[in-house]
Amino acid sequence: MPERTVFFVSDGTGIAAEALGKSVLAQFSSRPRHVRRPFVDNADKARAVVAEINAVAEAEGRRPIVFITLVHDDVRDIVAGSGCKALVLDMIRSFIEPLETEFGVKSNHRIGRFSDPAASPEYDGRIDAINFSLAHDDGQSARHLDSADVILVGVSRCGKTPTSLYLAMQHGIRAANYPLIPEDFERNRLPGVLESLKGKCFGLTIDPERLAQVRHERRPGSTYASLANCRREVRAAESLMQREGIEWLSSTHKSIEEIATTILRDLRPDRLVY
Amino acid sequence: MPERTVFFVSDGTGIAAEALGKSVLAQFSSRPRHVRRPFVDNADKARAVVAEINAVAEAEGRRPIVFITLVHDDVRDIVAGSGCKALVLDMIRSFIEPLETEFGVKSNHRIGRFSDPAASPEYDGRIDAINFSLAHDDGQSARHLDSADVILVGVSRCGKTPTSLYLAMQHGIRAANYPLIPEDFERNRLPGVLESLKGKCFGLTIDPERLAQVRHERRPGSTYASLANCRREVRAAESLMQREGIEWLSSTHKSIEEIATTILRDLRPDRLVY
Repeated sequence: MPERTVFFVSDGTGIAAEALGKSVLAQFSSRPRHVRRPFVDNADKARAVVAEINAVAEAEGRRPIVFITLVHDDVRDIVAGSGCKALVLDMIRSFIEPLETEFGVKSNHRIGRFSDPAASPEYDGRIDAINFSLAHDDGQSARHLDSADVILVGVSRCGKTPTSLYLAMQHGIRAANYPLIPEDFERNRLPGVLESLKGKCFGLTIDPERLAQVRHERRPGSTYASLANCRREVRAAESLMQREGIEWLSSTHKSIEEIATTILRDLRPDRLVY
Repeated sequence: MPERTVFFVSDGTGIAAEALGKSVLAQFSSRPRHVRRPFVDNADKARAVVAEINAVAEAEGRRPIVFITLVHDDVRDIVAGSGCKALVLDMIRSFIEPLETEFGVKSNHRIGRFSDPAASPEYDGRIDAINFSLAHDDGQSARHLDSADVILVGVSRCGKTPTSLYLAMQHGIRAANYPLIPEDFERNRLPGVLESLKGKCFGLTIDPERLAQVRHERRPGSTYASLANCRREVRAAESLMQREGIEWLSSTHKSIEEIATTILRDLRPDRLVY
């Protein structure tokens, strides 16, 4: 497919438009160039973006694809107007009209979901959760561990830290994580501090080959990173989790988004309803 | 507005559908209940979701709103079919048809943007960036600091840590952060280690009132948290950043998403184009 540029133009961050736009574009084999233009919230900025889009159209000889989330009509009409040489896909208005009919009211043209986060308890909860997850990363502290929503367990480098931080950042989940180490395998029991918190534990495992690769990047040539050791640790961790009745999943072929969503669904389904 | 439930039904995580759906719903004053149903990727799961939706329709006496991102026709047709008592808004197909016309090809019905993250260099970059940001949180280490993409500076508790982690997690940005402390204000200079890295520095500031509130939650009644001290530190930090020519913004009324997007736009605009 020929070269083509996709713009994501938003009066906010453009994050939602870009995320969904990518899912839509993933349905095609083209790999267009992506350009995000955030905070386009007045007519001057809208005209500047249209000039940029038109210059790209000229240079590439094809009209760009432009996904927009622009709430105000005056800004929206400039980017979606006939002066813009692009295929414009309006991600707000495509759904506003059926909703206006359904609700029987007009929409109120409000920008963004983050109007004043400092004033929102939900936002404060996310920040608190990040601090909690940082303080309880890698078994650093057992203090207030009982106030965790979730405690991820697994061998070193199986993906616990990024998943914990993601759960905290995106969902306000107080996610601790605790490594399973050779001493635990010898005892074939969970670390003592987790015994009474088993109901909050969720396990991550990983293919030994992948684990060896990740560990070799950290400590090349070490016993810790050797495939034999990784195999032994993973087998011991899975047997321990099975014995303790802890649910687990493999992080090998999953993104942190997918792991986090699975954990929410299985351990905290209430967090998917609010 | 009456009670109403909104479902986000996806064959993937549903994160993109939920993010954009929320922006759309923010245009109305209703506050419906949100239910996310991820990984609905076969006919059985689709029928189970329809049963749940219909039960809610019955209980609430109004049809739910259902945003879907379901790629495969067999699954999609069950949820969007006449058996589902809901207003179904299809976030993929609404945009697929105009794109098929534009590209002159049919879409290929591929699920998700995270097919096998372990195999993707972009995903590895995100995980590396998270590890880097953790290791360089709060000025913990000056090692490899010159390989940072961005170094956030500002007084303690102004939002540096969550912003750094967000930049790393969402954008694969190696974001370090470094506190500005009273010793720096006395010298009225940046910490020595940052002198040669000034071009990578971006400042965060915050209203002293908000800062005092945040610090009081941490250390109630301390001098550190007192309004007088917060005023002094914020004034000194802003004057230092101005003197050093470091760009900054106030985090007071901004979400980490907005702060991160602003930093990208101003300091690493290349990261908005790829």
